[in-house]
Amino acid sequence: MLEALKQQVLEANLDLPRYNLVTFTWGNVSAIDREQGVLVIKPSGVRYEKMQRDDMVVVDLESGAVIEGALRPSSDTATHRALYQAWPDIGGIVHTHSRHATIWAQAGRDIPAWGTTHADDFYGTIPCTRAMLRMEIEQEYEWNTGQVIIETFAHRNIQPAAIPAALVNSHGPFAWGSDAAAAVHSAVVLEEVAYMALHTEQLRAELPPISQNLLDLHYLRKHGKNAWYGQ
Amino acid sequence: MLEALKQQVLEANLDLPRYNLVTFTWGNVSAIDREQGVLVIKPSGVRYEKMQRDDMVVVDLESGAVIEGALRPSSDTATHRALYQAWPDIGGIVHTHSRHATIWAQAGRDIPAWGTTHADDFYGTIPCTRAMLRMEIEQEYEWNTGQVIIETFAHRNIQPAAIPAALVNSHGPFAWGSDAAAAVHSAVVLEEVAYMALHTEQLRAELPPISQNLLDLHYLRKHGKNAWYGQ
Amino acid sequence: MLEALKQQVLEANLDLPRYNLVTFTWGNVSAIDREQGVLVIKPSGVRYEKMQRDDMVVVDLESGAVIEGALRPSSDTATHRALYQAWPDIGGIVHTHSRHATIWAQAGRDIPAWGTTHADDFYGTIPCTRAMLRMEIEQEYEWNTGQVIIETFAHRNIQPAAIPAALVNSHGPFAWGSDAAAAVHSAVVLEEVAYMALHTEQLRAELPPISQNLLDLHYLRKHGKNAWYGQ
Amino acid sequence: MLEALKQQVLEANLDLPRYNLVTFTWGNVSAIDREQGVLVIKPSGVRYEKMQRDDMVVVDLESGAVIEGALRPSSDTATHRALYQAWPDIGGIVHTHSRHATIWAQAGRDIPAWGTTHADDFYGTIPCTRAMLRMEIEQEYEWNTGQVIIETFAHRNIQPAAIPAALVNSHGPFAWGSDAAAAVHSAVVLEEVAYMALHTEQLRAELPPISQNLLDLHYLRKHGKNAWYGQ
Repeated sequence: MLEALKQQVLEANLDLPRYNLVTFTWGNVSAIDREQGVLVIKPSGVRYEKMQRDDMVVVDLESGAVIEGALRPSSDTATHRALYQAWPDIGGIVHTHSRHATIWAQAGRDIPAWGTTHADDFYGTIPCTRAMLRMEIEQEYEWNTGQVIIETFAHRNIQPAAIPAALVNSHGPFAWGSDAAAAVHSAVVLEEVAYMALHTEQLRAELPPISQNLLDLHYLRKHGKNAWYGQ
Repeated sequence: MLEALKQQVLEANLDLPRYNLVTFTWGNVSAIDREQGVLVIKPSGVRYEKMQRDDMVVVDLESGAVIEGALRPSSDTATHRALYQAWPDIGGIVHTHSRHATIWAQAGRDIPAWGTTHADDFYGTIPCTRAMLRMEIEQEYEWNTGQVIIETFAHRNIQPAAIPAALVNSHGPFAWGSDAAAAVHSAVVLEEVAYMALHTEQLRAELPPISQNLLDLHYLRKHGKNAWYGQ
Repeated sequence: MLEALKQQVLEANLDLPRYNLVTFTWGNVSAIDREQGVLVIKPSGVRYEKMQRDDMVVVDLESGAVIEGALRPSSDTATHRALYQAWPDIGGIVHTHSRHATIWAQAGRDIPAWGTTHADDFYGTIPCTRAMLRMEIEQEYEWNTGQVIIETFAHRNIQPAAIPAALVNSHGPFAWGSDAAAAVHSAVVLEEVAYMALHTEQLRAELPPISQNLLDLHYLRKHGKNAWYGQ
Repeated sequence: MLEALKQQVLEANLDLPRYNLVTFTWGNVSAIDREQGVLVIKPSGVRYEKMQRDDMVVVDLESGAVIEGALRPSSDTATHRALYQAWPDIGGIVHTHSRHATIWAQAGRDIPAWGTTHADDFYGTIPCTRAMLRMEIEQEYEWNTGQVIIETFAHRNIQPAAIPAALVNSHGPFAWGSDAAAAVHSAVVLEEVAYMALHTEQLRAELPPISQNLLDLHYLRKHGKNAWYGQ
């Protein structure tokens, strides 16, 4: 039971070093089974080269209790749970410290939509969360990391399906998608646009975002019910 | 029929990941058979590692109709058709989102000829197109992407054989050549000079282009009827 | 005797090219056996691809005399000895010229704690030493390189276990840990945070360090007697 | 005859892609046999992966005539000849368009000695030549490229053995050494210090060079008759 999901989560985790998104074990992917109310997530502190399907840990969505697995779940599990609870449409989540997305997070800045590479997968600005409060840090930090992402999307009225990533202030990116593989896709594109945006600003200060028309064309031809695009 | 051309187009497409010009399937190469009035182009959304010669799609130059092939042609096919129709001397076209060329495109800036690496293959400034109008985006976007490149070269009186690449504003590069392999060559050099130019400006602001003499020497020793150079 | 330690030191040295921390032979790792009062260190000028366990050199901690080994110990051995003598809790040391840590060292600047990637392994600012005096350079340079690191930590009241790396002004990084592998870990994280900090400043000038609460949470959940974290 | 030298030149040329110093065929290495008055150099326009020992071309130092070899010598041969004629102590020369050395050349700037990585192999500033005159470009360009390097070293009173590289303005680097392998070593270190210096300046504007004492210590411990160093 859940073996197919574990396999997907394993493969998505192994994609992180393949796409140069992680150093050591700095990253984790999960996926959810909504019917059973459980998520499958990478174990804590295991090296990618040794990771096996059955190392994946099954965790109860509501309580966070480990349901199956001999290893401890990723320390970031509470962040994943918070996001899955708030957003019923997402099926997979990735956390990394990928270099350029982390640089934007450290600078505490949103990534503007400065090109169609961005617009192809993110329907506007990728937000950076506010700094967390002392109390949020000292108590249930990982859970609150999820809450501050959720708050950011709610306050700015952003749909998580339309902007499948957030930068956690002073920390790094979380990305998501309909399943584990889609979440990794979001994380790869995020890193790519973070790199490009960093250097775009060096070439042109005070650059406005691309036009709404161009954003609409690129995003909507690939996403939503009228999508038709493939490169 | 067209098997040799399909093989060339396949190999040119496979060169894109080899030269680190693409992530996922973000790129496409085509080549044209002028006698038959058809082009051969990468199929849409197929992973490079699985791509086969017979996946290449044959498209009618005038109408854009698929003449042969089980898969859909690249969504950028209309841009390729526009360029082939306007410029009878080019034989292959490449589109990528290669990082540094895309950065210049996002910044909306031309790449000046700041060194002989540039002059060896581009006979002057590599132009960035103007922003596209709402109507151009909303109707026949891919076709109009080609038109705005053609307009840029016409208005600035640039020969496409002399500057075998353009930056599409807010989007990314198109490059071309006498055949598919030559087009990939242009795309690789473009990415290289885009990287160098980005950082050259960081070392020296307000740098003028290299002298016309040096530009002539480097370009003309490699191109045109009096070329003699090989490194 | 010491074969296990030699093997650890060999493997740690081989990790340097694996993590892209060195060009040619520009790097060295050592580890100490406190009971015997000896350290094991990379030989001088040997290429990584040819290095064997028994090429490692055993050196007397106090005198610096070679106790075992046919090759000369690394020219930086005196720096290693100085640090081991001053700091009884460290077990392994790495010196590299890794690109971005060296860039900060060349600029003569400390690396501020600008994110949790930093805080996960460094409990605050990573210091850069003062410029060395003429006399310190001309006499016992390598020994004095160690002394200026020790002085920096003493004057700023930094515990070497809490900040397991230093930037030597105009030169490059030294990093350490409880053993050779832990020292390499410090060196890898140092290079990563050096890269990120360089570009973070480009995105936001005058950025203050992360809050003490966030620094405490991230550092203390991974280090010290109450540590519980694994990613 | 000259088979050993051809083999050395072949291997040195193959090192260029191995150290990521070249794209396509953009680079060439030569070595000289002073007794016979000939140099051995890479053929023009041959791909590195297909290059064989007997493809290397033997050229007369004085006249530039091809003495042995079925292929044309590198188009940069006249630059190599000029340097060998002017500087009797060098035995090997490398030309590349390696990214960061080329960036400094395009900016028309010298690379200051900003760290010990630089000082370990370059005894001071690495000079960039003046812009070439129209006449120098239009007639015997490659020969004059050598002359402008020689002029730069003479006017600034730099010994080519002490600073084994130059940046040709608007073009790229030449590096040299006692033989072909030593020349490649110089080219690799040049690229490394060019990268570091580019970013060092971003961290600290108006940085003075390292002290003469530190420059002396690092350079002289590795070079000259009192050298003792190995890392």
